[in-house]
Amino acid sequence: MIISMKLHATREEIDQVTRQVQEFGYKVHSSEGEERVGIGVVGVGDVTACMESVEAMPQVENVVRISAPYKFVSREFRAGRTQIRVNGTLIGGDEFVVMAGPCSVESEKQIMQAAEGVARAGAKILRGGAFKPRTSPYDFQGLETEGLKLLRKAKAATGLAIVTEVMTDRDVNLVAEYADILQVGARNMQNFVLLKELGKCGRPVLLKRGLSSTIKELLMSAEYITAHGNANVILCERGIRTFETVTRNTADIVAVAALNELTHLPVILDPSHATGKRSLVPALSRAGVAIGADGLIVEVHPAPEKAISDGAQSLDLVQFQKMMEELKPYVRLWQESRMAENEKRVAVPA
Amino acid sequence: MIISMKLHATREEIDQVTRQVQEFGYKVHSSEGEERVGIGVVGVGDVTACMESVEAMPQVENVVRISAPYKFVSREFRAGRTQIRVNGTLIGGDEFVVMAGPCSVESEKQIMQAAEGVARAGAKILRGGAFKPRTSPYDFQGLETEGLKLLRKAKAATGLAIVTEVMTDRDVNLVAEYADILQVGARNMQNFVLLKELGKCGRPVLLKRGLSSTIKELLMSAEYITAHGNANVILCERGIRTFETVTRNTADIVAVAALNELTHLPVILDPSHATGKRSLVPALSRAGVAIGADGLIVEVHPAPEKAISDGAQSLDLVQFQKMMEELKPYVRLWQESRMAENEKRVAVPA
Amino acid sequence: MIISMKLHATREEIDQVTRQVQEFGYKVHSSEGEERVGIGVVGVGDVTACMESVEAMPQVENVVRISAPYKFVSREFRAGRTQIRVNGTLIGGDEFVVMAGPCSVESEKQIMQAAEGVARAGAKILRGGAFKPRTSPYDFQGLETEGLKLLRKAKAATGLAIVTEVMTDRDVNLVAEYADILQVGARNMQNFVLLKELGKCGRPVLLKRGLSSTIKELLMSAEYITAHGNANVILCERGIRTFETVTRNTADIVAVAALNELTHLPVILDPSHATGKRSLVPALSRAGVAIGADGLIVEVHPAPEKAISDGAQSLDLVQFQKMMEELKPYVRLWQESRMAENEKRVAVPA
Amino acid sequence: MIISMKLHATREEIDQVTRQVQEFGYKVHSSEGEERVGIGVVGVGDVTACMESVEAMPQVENVVRISAPYKFVSREFRAGRTQIRVNGTLIGGDEFVVMAGPCSVESEKQIMQAAEGVARAGAKILRGGAFKPRTSPYDFQGLETEGLKLLRKAKAATGLAIVTEVMTDRDVNLVAEYADILQVGARNMQNFVLLKELGKCGRPVLLKRGLSSTIKELLMSAEYITAHGNANVILCERGIRTFETVTRNTADIVAVAALNELTHLPVILDPSHATGKRSLVPALSRAGVAIGADGLIVEVHPAPEKAISDGAQSLDLVQFQKMMEELKPYVRLWQESRMAENEKRVAVPA
Repeated sequence: MIISMKLHATREEIDQVTRQVQEFGYKVHSSEGEERVGIGVVGVGDVTACMESVEAMPQVENVVRISAPYKFVSREFRAGRTQIRVNGTLIGGDEFVVMAGPCSVESEKQIMQAAEGVARAGAKILRGGAFKPRTSPYDFQGLETEGLKLLRKAKAATGLAIVTEVMTDRDVNLVAEYADILQVGARNMQNFVLLKELGKCGRPVLLKRGLSSTIKELLMSAEYITAHGNANVILCERGIRTFETVTRNTADIVAVAALNELTHLPVILDPSHATGKRSLVPALSRAGVAIGADGLIVEVHPAPEKAISDGAQSLDLVQFQKMMEELKPYVRLWQESRMAENEKRVAVPA
Repeated sequence: MIISMKLHATREEIDQVTRQVQEFGYKVHSSEGEERVGIGVVGVGDVTACMESVEAMPQVENVVRISAPYKFVSREFRAGRTQIRVNGTLIGGDEFVVMAGPCSVESEKQIMQAAEGVARAGAKILRGGAFKPRTSPYDFQGLETEGLKLLRKAKAATGLAIVTEVMTDRDVNLVAEYADILQVGARNMQNFVLLKELGKCGRPVLLKRGLSSTIKELLMSAEYITAHGNANVILCERGIRTFETVTRNTADIVAVAALNELTHLPVILDPSHATGKRSLVPALSRAGVAIGADGLIVEVHPAPEKAISDGAQSLDLVQFQKMMEELKPYVRLWQESRMAENEKRVAVPA
Repeated sequence: MIISMKLHATREEIDQVTRQVQEFGYKVHSSEGEERVGIGVVGVGDVTACMESVEAMPQVENVVRISAPYKFVSREFRAGRTQIRVNGTLIGGDEFVVMAGPCSVESEKQIMQAAEGVARAGAKILRGGAFKPRTSPYDFQGLETEGLKLLRKAKAATGLAIVTEVMTDRDVNLVAEYADILQVGARNMQNFVLLKELGKCGRPVLLKRGLSSTIKELLMSAEYITAHGNANVILCERGIRTFETVTRNTADIVAVAALNELTHLPVILDPSHATGKRSLVPALSRAGVAIGADGLIVEVHPAPEKAISDGAQSLDLVQFQKMMEELKPYVRLWQESRMAENEKRVAVPA
Repeated sequence: MIISMKLHATREEIDQVTRQVQEFGYKVHSSEGEERVGIGVVGVGDVTACMESVEAMPQVENVVRISAPYKFVSREFRAGRTQIRVNGTLIGGDEFVVMAGPCSVESEKQIMQAAEGVARAGAKILRGGAFKPRTSPYDFQGLETEGLKLLRKAKAATGLAIVTEVMTDRDVNLVAEYADILQVGARNMQNFVLLKELGKCGRPVLLKRGLSSTIKELLMSAEYITAHGNANVILCERGIRTFETVTRNTADIVAVAALNELTHLPVILDPSHATGKRSLVPALSRAGVAIGADGLIVEVHPAPEKAISDGAQSLDLVQFQKMMEELKPYVRLWQESRMAENEKRVAVPA
């Protein structure tokens, strides 16, 4: 932590700040310039509390945190990639993993058709919402437990693993009975009670970035789950909210590469929510493979124009099949790059 | 709802869209320009489902919703202001209501000092968090039930009503035992399970706007609570997330005036989170009174530099007292304007 | 400047950074924590060049600038307020100054009616665009020199001073012949060639904040004008671009208060562009007075529904007159507060 | 254009709006719902003026424009891609074009080393700023004409074409003497005087998207240049300003794909400004190729740690060479896809 004093801070004011910091158990090195005094703080203690306390003092200009606020999820904690095995598929490993399916589970026929279609095209994990967070109370809220049962049927029929959303800590155990991966929606990324409960649950978690959450906040939310006992977290970039209106959200694709530098957790991309437009999904999916995401989560519906939700951004089964074909050469390049990375790692003696 | 077709849409494609809309029970009027066809949709039906369905059809350029998606919270539903009586204080009426207190309940001494201080200065409602949503799992998470009990003590000692946050649907009944107003934090504004539970609970709700939520989304979240049975909702503007870094958030003060046009619910302003800086709180509070907010919620701490959270944006008791004094002439102008509004309303024969 | 090294930076890497900084003439104090090294940089030199150079070095985590990048416009440079006299009116002094008029000068009749109307209501300065920046090349681009001549006529008839936009450095001298204040539009806030030319010109400048410019960038643009010789700069908050769509822009009203802390330059508020809606202009204007702006610039048109541009956000003459009346008690409070500030300053012996 | 009336609009108010629209030469079709009246407007006229006029009328809820506001740059105007030949290189054709070089031209030695290095690695166009827009008046402002002369030397030595920025309409002819492509910087995207002057100039223009400009505004700025006579416009996505701070800007990579749907103009990506971090440039460049950009513009410096500007985001010559190698298989896939597109087009009889 580095504290900058205001221009006219007196010796007494500087000493007050120094004493305050020392009360939190830190050591202090101050740098006195011609104009301004900077105070370097080192040691181990309750950083946030100390920062907030100092920020509240008069004559303090600003306080900058240097160390990362997360530990377990950081690259510095683990050099290799976290690999998460789900129903025989390895996420974060040498396979580019595609999750696909409808926004909502609507009926047995719909989810079965979707599951068979996406499995045929090469997806390994079926997505589908049984509990649906909807902006309006008057919109379809999901089939709930009935939807979970239909997902289980689809799994039995196709062998696909299931990823589905859980909206409240109260439902974590229920959803975990049916799902292989529990999804946290963008609007719940900072539902800390839910995150803690997911920490106690053994199941892998797919954590979607909030609409206006920073990359660091996403990592802090992953840290919540990890710190409460569950290291199996998959991060998901799904677009952030900006002023642009041609697309539903703005895909922050560089977040994928930045996260690969900052964390060992797998990172996938959701091209459907990021664009909001079916026609843009294949192009963004290619970019996602090229930038090094570990996988995709794509909305696919047997009849998008009949979908209860997100029809405009859903591919139909033919379009999804075509996209998966087109992605193949990009996925091959992705695999070569992963192999090269593995060899480099092996070559380094422990 | 207005549907615009793409430039080269064929007659058959236009007819397909028309039939789709009619399946949802709507009537259709189409406007054929020289270049493009627009389809006007009128009637009553499931608007969202119909819109999403049509958006998913090829050759549809875009779909614009005209009617507001909320009903109960809309000005068109109720012409006058919703007034909410809390512990003898009327919110949304002819009194400008100030809620004040620390970010977190930290100890009996702290909350008692805070309560007495803010009561003396003229606040009517005590704020203080017992359950704290924190970005980091390593930060103080609140005293929980113990904190609620301390709030009850402070109420007993000072007569102040209590507003405090509830973070999960599971805790609604617990918190409602202690609090006069249940607060929904910005990060939970779209925690729909929590909103539904609050709808079933009788207690007034203080609903904070999400960091990147639109005004319409805020109204939709209020509609959730209202549609589930609880009409006592107070809206709170607390700053939105933008690119600016001099302040913690950007106070969208015009949202207060815009909400006054769109809804009959009371609207208050949180100058502490909106600015993140103590020195800016009084200025924004004046502006909040002048623009016609129904009240303020202000962070006040007996010793901000010792605060466990939000010290930099908390006023101390002397500063709060001074601010309340300075606000008085503005509050008088506010009251004159409310009186004038009431007289105008009374003058209109029912 | 504070430099944080990456976690595993070696001694040699730290020394490289130190040498690099010393080459720019700075002194160095390093703080070695258990985990990370921080390097404090003090002295006088080319800060930006030094920062950019260091940021480019491997093993540097990040670099934080502490000193403000502006000098002349800073509060630390001048304690009192800059007061700018324009045609008998003092901006930044003890008078709350209202500038008003149409978006564009459209015809002699229109600008004369507007000028007489706003003068009657108490405005002191007439606004009106002769050169119009328009998003579309097919929209009305202004009457240009003819418009300037009409503004001169309106000034002769009413005694109002004139503020009007200059769009390119080439026109600075031309516009300065007619206008008392030269306006820089939001889209030109970082047109540095124009800013330099305005620095050489004696006329006061009204500098509007860019749609997505930070407060610091606004101050840097003012610094351009000042550093090139013209200290008469008036800053203008006119709303920033965010995700919200109910209003045309988001009024960052706290920027007014923050600027009052950071700079001695006068700051005015444009409630018309900030809201984009006529009905919200009076409420935001009240808030602007209350928060301590030095004045307002308001769009007023004799017949808004016939306006060539910005009709939806323009008040008509009756509405403007009514708003000016309603502002009076707020302006009285504003004046009391200015007087108190002056007395405090006078009381301090030089 | 579709006009929605407010809920309680009277017959007379609706008729007023209708007459107003007809005065602009349009025809009207109104759709009367149970709740609200919508008015469809068709025909040819001054759309913007008509919209603004109607928006200003009381009882009008909102006005939605249906037709695109741009013509010449639209896909509907030209089905194929605009191809721009520059010094033997075809932009928008079957070659993926890389522009590279330093942020600023600093010295003969520097620009010569950069030019030779990027040419060797496969770049076809040399970038380098002679006129530099800098946030601070105290930062290096470029070598100006001297810099242009050095670029000419570098072109003579390497055969690379030159792209460099022009900051004011006054310099268009000067810069056009030296440069093959005139660059408009992000901060000048809506400098309409400059755009008009570039329209009159024959040289191809590289138009960078503004920091907070929408995709439609970017197209409108291109329309300015085209409407004034110059159809050779290359668009450039360089990241937009958001709340995220890990990267300097947020690369809106989907804008590339969206622009490919909306316009026939070539679109390139600037991975250097979009990320602000050297380490992220190669990953984003791969994504740019994969999503279908026509090329890249990359900052490369022989010694980034000695660069006067943008060192942290500049690759050195070895890094650039390595990146170009790694891009090759992606560029091959890109070329296959362009060929397939060409064949499809040829197959359609004219």
